[in-house]
Amino acid sequence: MPLILIRHGESEANFANYWTGWLDVNLTEKGREQAMLAGKKISEAGYQIDLAFESVLKRSILTAELILEQNNASAVPEFKTWRLNERHYGDLVGKNKAKMTAEYGAEQVEKWRRGYDEVPPQVKINHFDRRYNNLDPRLIPKGESLHQTEQRVIPLWQDEIVPELKAGKTVLVVGHGNSLRSLIRYIEEVPPLEVNQIDIPNATAMIYDFDQQMKITHKKIM
Amino acid sequence: MPLILIRHGESEANFANYWTGWLDVNLTEKGREQAMLAGKKISEAGYQIDLAFESVLKRSILTAELILEQNNASAVPEFKTWRLNERHYGDLVGKNKAKMTAEYGAEQVEKWRRGYDEVPPQVKINHFDRRYNNLDPRLIPKGESLHQTEQRVIPLWQDEIVPELKAGKTVLVVGHGNSLRSLIRYIEEVPPLEVNQIDIPNATAMIYDFDQQMKITHKKIM
Repeated sequence: MPLILIRHGESEANFANYWTGWLDVNLTEKGREQAMLAGKKISEAGYQIDLAFESVLKRSILTAELILEQNNASAVPEFKTWRLNERHYGDLVGKNKAKMTAEYGAEQVEKWRRGYDEVPPQVKINHFDRRYNNLDPRLIPKGESLHQTEQRVIPLWQDEIVPELKAGKTVLVVGHGNSLRSLIRYIEEVPPLEVNQIDIPNATAMIYDFDQQMKITHKKIM
Repeated sequence: MPLILIRHGESEANFANYWTGWLDVNLTEKGREQAMLAGKKISEAGYQIDLAFESVLKRSILTAELILEQNNASAVPEFKTWRLNERHYGDLVGKNKAKMTAEYGAEQVEKWRRGYDEVPPQVKINHFDRRYNNLDPRLIPKGESLHQTEQRVIPLWQDEIVPELKAGKTVLVVGHGNSLRSLIRYIEEVPPLEVNQIDIPNATAMIYDFDQQMKITHKKIM
C-alpha cells in the first residue's frame, strides 16, 4: 500500500518568489519537466499508480497529469479537491517575500512562512472563480495558519486516502508545500514546534509504506 | 443544459491510416493543437464546462485535458470510462486501411468501417494492460459491430450523462469516431441504415441543447 506524496513542479510564483496560496498560477516550463522526470523515476522504481488526489489548482492538476502520463496511468481515476489546496496566505498573497522581509523583518516573515499557529493578515474578500461555488462559504478561509490547513487536509486523509491504501491501492497525492507539510506532520507525528523542519521541495516523490494500523514502515525520497 | 460532444484530436493512427480501436495511441503534435483550438473556440462561444466524460484511451484523455485547460476548467471532475472507448475493431486492429482495400475490396472495407451490424473478424486474445482488470471479462469485446458499440455506450448516456444535463450542467464528452457516432445515432434517432452518413471529424465540437424530455432543441457544430 504505497503512498506517493509529491509537491507540484516549479510554478510561476515559486520562480518569482511571492506568496501564492489559492492563486491559480501556471507551472513554468522547468516545472513541467520536473513533473515528467518525477513520473519517470516513479515508473522506473516499479510503482504503478492506481488513483490520484489533486488540489483544484492547476499547478497540482497538471503535475499529476504529467506524472500519470509517464506512469502509463492516464486512465486511472483522479480526484480534485480544495482540501489539498495550498495554505491560504490571506493578505500576503501576491506579496514578494524578499520585499516583505525588508519591511517586516526576517523573524516575522519566517513566522508567517513556518509557524504552526501563525495566522496571516486576513483578506476582506476572496476573489474566486466558480470552482468554489458549491462549497459552504464558512469553509472558505480568508487566511490560514498551518494548523488550520492541517485541519482541512486530515478529513481527506482519513475519509478518502486511507481507505484506498487499506484496499491495497498505490495512491498518488499531488499537493502543495503546506498542504503536504501539514499532512506529513500528521502522519509522521512531528511535534508542532518542529514543523518548520519539514521541507518539501518541488516535484520530489516522498514514498511511504504503512502497516495495517497505518504506522509508517518505510519511507524513501526520490 | 448544453452537451458538448467532441472526438479526440488527430492520433498517430489517424495519421498512419490504420484501424486502432482499443489500441492506446498518442495524439500527434497536430492533434494537440487541434484540441487546444477546440477548447479556445468552446470558451469564446461562452461555454463553461462543469464536468467531463472521457474514454480510458489517452488520445481522449489528453484531448479533454487540453480542452479543459483552455476553458479554465482543469479543476472540474473528469470521469474516465471504457464505455466511451473506440469501437473494438477485432482482428482489423493495426491493419492499414488502404492495404486491406487492395486485398478485400472497397465494399468489404466500407462495410467494416460503416456498417451498423457488421462484426469485424474477432481477436483470439486481447492483450490489454491493467486498466480493464476490474471489468467483468464477459463485457470485454473481441471485436464489435457499431450496434454493439452503441449498446455499451447508451448505459453511460442514460445513467450518467443525462442526469448531469438535467441538473443544468454543461457536459463535455470526449470520445472516438464510433463511440460518438453510435451515441449521435441514438440521440438524433438516425435510422441504422443511414448511420454511415454521420461523419465525426477530429476535434470538432458538436453542441446540443435539449428540452426536459431530452429532445434536441438546437445543434451547432464548431
